[in-house]
Amino acid sequence: MMEFTDEAVKSASIQQLESLSEELRREIYETVSVCGGHLSSNLGAVELTVALHRVFDFPKDKLVFDVGHQCYTHKLLSGRAEKFHTLRREGGLSGFPKRNESDFDCYDTGHAGTAISACLGIAKARDLKREDFRVIALVGDGSFQNGLIYEALNSLKILHTKVLIVLNDNGMSISPTVGGLHEALERMKGEHSAEDVALFERFGLRYIGCVNGNSFEELLPALERAKEAMEEETVLLHVVTQKGHGYPFSELAPMETHGLSPKAVTKEYSSALGEELSRLAERDETIVAVSAAMTDSLGLRGFFEKFPDRAFDVGICEEHASVLCAALATQGLKPYYAIYSTFLQRAFDEIIHDVCGQDLPVTFCIDRAGATGADGETHQGVFDLSYLSFIPNLTVAIPKNIAEFRKMLALSAEYPHPLAIRYPREGTEGEADEVEIGKFEILHSTLSDIVLFAAGERCIRLAFSVRETLLERFGLDVSVVNARFLKPLDGELLASRREVLVVTLEDNVKVGGLGTAVSEFYRNSGKTVLTFGYDEIFLPHGEVASLMEKYGLGKDKIVGEIVKYARR
Amino acid sequence: MMEFTDEAVKSASIQQLESLSEELRREIYETVSVCGGHLSSNLGAVELTVALHRVFDFPKDKLVFDVGHQCYTHKLLSGRAEKFHTLRREGGLSGFPKRNESDFDCYDTGHAGTAISACLGIAKARDLKREDFRVIALVGDGSFQNGLIYEALNSLKILHTKVLIVLNDNGMSISPTVGGLHEALERMKGEHSAEDVALFERFGLRYIGCVNGNSFEELLPALERAKEAMEEETVLLHVVTQKGHGYPFSELAPMETHGLSPKAVTKEYSSALGEELSRLAERDETIVAVSAAMTDSLGLRGFFEKFPDRAFDVGICEEHASVLCAALATQGLKPYYAIYSTFLQRAFDEIIHDVCGQDLPVTFCIDRAGATGADGETHQGVFDLSYLSFIPNLTVAIPKNIAEFRKMLALSAEYPHPLAIRYPREGTEGEADEVEIGKFEILHSTLSDIVLFAAGERCIRLAFSVRETLLERFGLDVSVVNARFLKPLDGELLASRREVLVVTLEDNVKVGGLGTAVSEFYRNSGKTVLTFGYDEIFLPHGEVASLMEKYGLGKDKIVGEIVKYARR
Repeated sequence: MMEFTDEAVKSASIQQLESLSEELRREIYETVSVCGGHLSSNLGAVELTVALHRVFDFPKDKLVFDVGHQCYTHKLLSGRAEKFHTLRREGGLSGFPKRNESDFDCYDTGHAGTAISACLGIAKARDLKREDFRVIALVGDGSFQNGLIYEALNSLKILHTKVLIVLNDNGMSISPTVGGLHEALERMKGEHSAEDVALFERFGLRYIGCVNGNSFEELLPALERAKEAMEEETVLLHVVTQKGHGYPFSELAPMETHGLSPKAVTKEYSSALGEELSRLAERDETIVAVSAAMTDSLGLRGFFEKFPDRAFDVGICEEHASVLCAALATQGLKPYYAIYSTFLQRAFDEIIHDVCGQDLPVTFCIDRAGATGADGETHQGVFDLSYLSFIPNLTVAIPKNIAEFRKMLALSAEYPHPLAIRYPREGTEGEADEVEIGKFEILHSTLSDIVLFAAGERCIRLAFSVRETLLERFGLDVSVVNARFLKPLDGELLASRREVLVVTLEDNVKVGGLGTAVSEFYRNSGKTVLTFGYDEIFLPHGEVASLMEKYGLGKDKIVGEIVKYARR
Repeated sequence: MMEFTDEAVKSASIQQLESLSEELRREIYETVSVCGGHLSSNLGAVELTVALHRVFDFPKDKLVFDVGHQCYTHKLLSGRAEKFHTLRREGGLSGFPKRNESDFDCYDTGHAGTAISACLGIAKARDLKREDFRVIALVGDGSFQNGLIYEALNSLKILHTKVLIVLNDNGMSISPTVGGLHEALERMKGEHSAEDVALFERFGLRYIGCVNGNSFEELLPALERAKEAMEEETVLLHVVTQKGHGYPFSELAPMETHGLSPKAVTKEYSSALGEELSRLAERDETIVAVSAAMTDSLGLRGFFEKFPDRAFDVGICEEHASVLCAALATQGLKPYYAIYSTFLQRAFDEIIHDVCGQDLPVTFCIDRAGATGADGETHQGVFDLSYLSFIPNLTVAIPKNIAEFRKMLALSAEYPHPLAIRYPREGTEGEADEVEIGKFEILHSTLSDIVLFAAGERCIRLAFSVRETLLERFGLDVSVVNARFLKPLDGELLASRREVLVVTLEDNVKVGGLGTAVSEFYRNSGKTVLTFGYDEIFLPHGEVASLMEKYGLGKDKIVGEIVKYARR
C-alpha cells in the first residue's frame, strides 16, 4: 500500500497511481460512511486530483477549488491523511478547503462560481510581485452555469494574466446540470465544432479537451500539455469524470450520494414543502416552483414530476432565479423559490431590487436555516434573519414545527406580498393551529415575571428546556411564546405582556434578528430584555447541538443569565 | 411638429420618424439640462426606441429595459410627454421604468443585468396562461458583462420560451466597456466569424446583426425580421448605437455626460479617494484599486492613469470584483474596492463568503451612501449600515467630513482586516484629527442630560442644527458625538456617558444600523434611546434634503421628540 503523500504521487508508475486511486477511493468511502460528507463528487475526482498533484508542484503552485466539496483526495495527499478520520467532525478536518488548515489550501470556498475570479486575483498578485508559480482552478460543470464564472472569463482580457482552468465535467450539479452550456459541453464530448469551442475561446483562452478524467493515460499527457500551454495563455482543460466513479451504487445514484449524513433523519421540512406545494398547486394553477440546482434536497422532486410545466430548475443561478420569480409574479403567477439560507445571500440584491422593490408575491422557502452543522463556516444559515429584517415590503415567518410550516404555506398562497419562510433541515411534524400574518402564539402562560420569546423549532425546544430547569432548580415558571414572525412583529401581543424580564432565543446571529427586533420594541419600556443567538463569528463545523451550546445558545448559560437578572 | 405618441410613430414616414427623433432628442436634452438625468445613453437610443414603438405593439407587447436609464424616449412616446418636464423631480416622473407610472412600464429596473431574466419570466408566464404577446429586452453592452445575463442565457434551453433580446451596443458602460465580450462584439461590427456569433448562439438563440441603431433604414427592416424570427426562437439583435448621438458635445464626451446633475457640486468624496489612494500607493506598492465600471464617478481616473498595472476595472461585475479583491489580498496585496452603496448589495455574499470569511484586508470604499436623490428607489444607498452590521470580522467606518475620510484611508493602509468606509457623494473638506478604529469623537460637550450620536456628514450637520434649535427655543444645550464607527462601537465612550436621553441620527434605514447598535448597547441601562433614520420604505426620487425631511430625518420632528422625552 502506497502512502498518501504528494511525494509518492510524484514518483509512482501509472499502475501505482491506479492502485493508489483505489485506496484513496476506499478511504474516502469509508470515512464518508462514518463522518458523512460529499461522496460521489469526491469519488469522481480522485484520478484528476492525483494527476494534478503529479503534474504540478503544490503548495508552490496554487490549486483553487470551486465550491470545494471535491477536495478530499487533495486533503489526503497534502499531509492530512492521518487526520482524515476526523473529517467534518468538531475540531477535525473541514469538508472544504481551509487556508488555516494547510498551506496546500490557498483559498477558502463553499459557494459556487468563485474559483476563476480567485485564481485571477492570485495570479495577478503573483505577476505584480514578480513571483513564479502556477495557478489552477478546478471547477465543476455545475458551477460553470453561475454568472460569476462569466464575469471572471470576461475579465481575462482585462487582467492579462495566465491561469489554468480545469473544467471537471460530470454532468451533475447536485441535480443534473441543465441549460445551454451543458448542451454545448455534451456536444463537445463528441466531435465538437469550432463554434462549440468558441463559447469559451472567444473570451481569450485556449481550449484543450475533451479528456477522460478517470484515466491516467489520458489525464497525465493532457495536463502536461496544459501546463506548457499556460505559459503562453490561459487554458481551459475540459475533463470528463464520472460522479461516483468506482462505486457502483454511487455511480447509479449520484444525486442520492452527493452528500451523506452519518445519521438517519426522522423528518425533514423539505418533504413537507414538496407535499404542501403539490397540494396547493393542484387547486391553484398560478403556483410555480423555482430551484437553483437543488430540486431534490429541497423536497421538490415530486412537484417537478407532477407539474413539469410549472417547475423550473435553472441551475446554480441564485440571482437569475430570483429575478425570474419576480417577473413571473408581475404576470399574476405565484412563484415559490426554494433555496438554502446560505445560498440566498447570493440573491440579496435581487430580493431588494426585483422582488420587494416591486412588492411582488414571491415566497422564499428558506431551507437549512440556522446552524447547519458539518459543512461549517460557508454553509451556516445564521445570517438570514438579520439580512431580511430591514427590507421594506417583506414578511418573515419562522414555523415552530412542520405542521405550522404547512399552515404558513397554505397562508402564503393567498398572500399578495413578498414572504420568506425560514426553517432548519430536520424537525418534528407536531401540531399547529391556523396562522395569521404577524401574530405570535402563546405556548405556555404563567403569572411569572419572565417570558421567553423563541423563534423556530430548535429554539422553542430550547425555551421549554430552559423553562423546565428554571422550574426545577429555582421554582420559576416562565411563559413561552412562539415568535413566529420576525416581520411584522406581533405588536399587540408584545404591548400586552406584563412581564418585566423578556428573553429571546433564535437560531441566528444575535445581531439584527429577533432579539434586536423585540429589544427595539421594548426600548424605553423599563423592561429588561435578554437576547440569545449566535456570537458574531463564522461558526465552524460541528454538531448543531454542540454549536448551539458553545456559541451562544447553551441552556445553562441562558438559565444563569435569567436567574441573575430575575434576582435583581 | 409631430406629437410624441405611440400612434404617431406607427403611421409616420421614415422622414417623419427622423424629424421626430430630432425633436425627442431636443426635448431630452433640454429636460436633462434642467432636471439632470442620463443624457448620452438616452440620446443614443432615440431611434432604437422609436423603431421599437413602430414595430411592436406596446403595452400589449412588453418592453423590459436593463438598468433603465435609457427609457426617456419610451416615456415620451407612452403618454408621459406632458409630464416630462417633471423628470426626476419629487413627485414627478422617475428617471427609470416604474410599473406604477404607466402600463407601458412592465418591470422596474435600476441595477444591471436583470432584463433577460425578467423577459424570460414574463414570457414563461405568458405561455402558461396561454396569452399572446411579445417580450423584448433592451440591454446595453455594459450590462452584458454582468453574470446575471449569462445565467439567463443559460436557461434559454431550460425554459423553452421565446423572447427578443436587443443588444444596444454603444461600447460604453459608464466607463468604456471592457473585456473579452466587448472584444468579440467589436469584431462582430466588422466581418464577424461564425465563432464570434457562436458566443451567443451556443446558448440556443439566433443572432441577427450588426445593425446601425441610429438609422431607421437599417433598424426597421431588422426589427421586422427579428419580430418574425422570434416566433420560432429567441433572437438576439445586435444594434450599434452612438452614445450621445446627435449632440456633438455628448458624442465626444459620453462619460462626462452619462449622468448630469442640475446643480454645481462644491466638493466630492470621490476626489479625495482618488487623491489619497494615489498618495498612499506611491509609498505602498501593495495597494491596488478595483472598480466595477465606475472608475470616473468614483474618483479613480487619476489612480488608473498613474498606476495602470495596479488598477482593475472589471466591468459591471460587482461579485467578481469582490472575489478578485479577496484573492489579491490572500497574496499580501492591499485591495481597495470602490463602489456605490446600492451596487454593493450585489456582492453581499462575496463580502461574507470571500472577504470576511477569510478575514482579508480588503477596503470597501462605499460611495453614494445614504439617500442619493434623483435616481430614486433603486439607487438609494440606505441599507448598507444594516447589511454590514452583523458580518463577522468587518469594521465599518463613517467619516464626518472629507478630511476625516482621508484620515480613515490613511489608517486603512495599515489595517489587517476587512474595512468598509461609507460616505455620501458630496461633502465639505473640513478638518479632522487622527482616527483610531472603534473610537468616537466628542464634537460638543455640555452638562445637559441629552446626547446626540450622529453618523456621517449629513447627520452631524443635522445634529448641530437640532442642537441649535433646542438651545434657542428650549434652552437645552445638548452634547454631540461623531459616531464614526458602526462596528466596533466605542464601548468605552458609550459606557462613560452620563446623559439619560440618548439620540441617534443616521442616513440609513432606521432598522439595523447605528440606532439599533447604540440602543442595543444601552439595553437595560435605564437610559432612554431615541433613534432616527429612514422609514422602512423604498425612498422615491427627490432632493436629499427633502427625503430626509419627509421620511424620518426631519429636524422639527427630531426636536419635537427630544423635547417630549426631555420633559418626562
